[in-house]
Amino acid sequence: MKLATSVLHIFAVVCLLLISACNAETQWRVLKPENTVLMTLPHGKVVIELAPQFSPKHVQQFSTLIKDGHYDGNKFYRVIDGFVAQGGPEDGSIKDKSVPLLAIEGEWKTDKNWSFTKVQDNDLFAEQTGFKNGFAMGYNPSEKAAWLVHCPGTIAMARGNEADSASSHFYIPNGQALRYLDRIMTVFGRVVFGMEHIQALKRTSVIEGQPAVDSRDFTAMIRMEMMSDVPKNQQIIIEIENTEDAAFTQRLVKHRKRENPFFYKKPLPVLDICQVPLKARLIK
Amino acid sequence: MKLATSVLHIFAVVCLLLISACNAETQWRVLKPENTVLMTLPHGKVVIELAPQFSPKHVQQFSTLIKDGHYDGNKFYRVIDGFVAQGGPEDGSIKDKSVPLLAIEGEWKTDKNWSFTKVQDNDLFAEQTGFKNGFAMGYNPSEKAAWLVHCPGTIAMARGNEADSASSHFYIPNGQALRYLDRIMTVFGRVVFGMEHIQALKRTSVIEGQPAVDSRDFTAMIRMEMMSDVPKNQQIIIEIENTEDAAFTQRLVKHRKRENPFFYKKPLPVLDICQVPLKARLIK
Repeated sequence: MKLATSVLHIFAVVCLLLISACNAETQWRVLKPENTVLMTLPHGKVVIELAPQFSPKHVQQFSTLIKDGHYDGNKFYRVIDGFVAQGGPEDGSIKDKSVPLLAIEGEWKTDKNWSFTKVQDNDLFAEQTGFKNGFAMGYNPSEKAAWLVHCPGTIAMARGNEADSASSHFYIPNGQALRYLDRIMTVFGRVVFGMEHIQALKRTSVIEGQPAVDSRDFTAMIRMEMMSDVPKNQQIIIEIENTEDAAFTQRLVKHRKRENPFFYKKPLPVLDICQVPLKARLIK
Repeated sequence: MKLATSVLHIFAVVCLLLISACNAETQWRVLKPENTVLMTLPHGKVVIELAPQFSPKHVQQFSTLIKDGHYDGNKFYRVIDGFVAQGGPEDGSIKDKSVPLLAIEGEWKTDKNWSFTKVQDNDLFAEQTGFKNGFAMGYNPSEKAAWLVHCPGTIAMARGNEADSASSHFYIPNGQALRYLDRIMTVFGRVVFGMEHIQALKRTSVIEGQPAVDSRDFTAMIRMEMMSDVPKNQQIIIEIENTEDAAFTQRLVKHRKRENPFFYKKPLPVLDICQVPLKARLIK
């Protein structure tokens, strides 16, 4: 591990010195079907990567509920433009009440060996931001705390007023990042394919003066499945660029420099963690 | 004007002291039909407020082109998830080439009397952020410069590599704010109604491994009209909360404090300028 890190470091330094000569090829990480969710909507398919390494209990409960068919036919009953698409079983129904409550997993303590691929210092909501295993996160060294951040397309569990009151209702931010919810909600995955179908969900909320939306028009999740339970010929297998690799670090350096002639005047060399899209490709 | 400012100031201070006793009613600003655009898409109607006070030449050209029917039937030919929806005439066509080029209006100089409703200090891309006349902006006192920022739903003119090369192609960010484009592009308005229809536009770009999208499937703007040219009984008249009023300042204070019991642990008292949605209502 130590050797790998050193090699990576030397490589990154060389790349910084000889940027144009050093176009490391993107390294890919294949998403495991047992760690991926297929959501079938009336208008398209959405793939979600789960993050059991960061939010294990939420991922376990979500996966179990999916296998039990808990979400099949559930509605996206709270879809607010520039905020979230939230779905789950009918509020207060037997199905809803039968789900155990979850202890929050909004952040975790880091030890001295903890590391991530840093993107930015002095973010509005974090001392540092970066990526680990393909997930965007915040990190406060002063508190020894790290957490998954709310970007467009992250999936998090909804809750009541109490910290430990999440069960099965989930939301996906559909507009500008909801960073003020970081650390007090449990983010447990992110949409890696088909985000346009989440953005196209029927809005359930109107502005003053507009007629209310009939709840019968809310969009249903036709089916939610663990990708590993989907017949092999219907699986959607995605690869994401490896955020632990030197090629990614190098891409961040270039990204920040904005060397394309389009930037006739350079923006500040800063990166918003939620505006660093990761490359993805479809394997089958 | 001076009196109004003083009264506003006193009111704001009293509100800060007696926050709960001071629920100022939202003050509304009606959008003028001659300053508003109606975009008719196959799947819905979108209303855009223009900003002639900040980007006069772009607004003038855009309005003239709309009245000439320049955009009717144009395609959204570059719709990339988490980035932009861009539209305009066929590239290189006579229609395209006939449009005069515009000098950039990406920022402007402020004098000592310049002011806005401040939202946040030390934003990643600006010394200060805030609102003026309902538009989100950045402001660097050290440079005496201010500009309209790129939030989801702002409309800006596309350009080539040169600063003064915009003509009629425009884009609307559809995901996380593209703040690194601030000051080097001309933002000239924002979507105030129907943003969900922009988000639902057919994507034109695919990831590696996906079949390409047939350009015949790209979404067309059926019609673009100045609202003042729309028959009165078909006009969509919107009001937006007045960002110069004490009620708005007071709402910002509350917003930042997150006093709702849902926040069992308070987030940092900071606001992302692109995550401060302005209230809107439909008059007719």
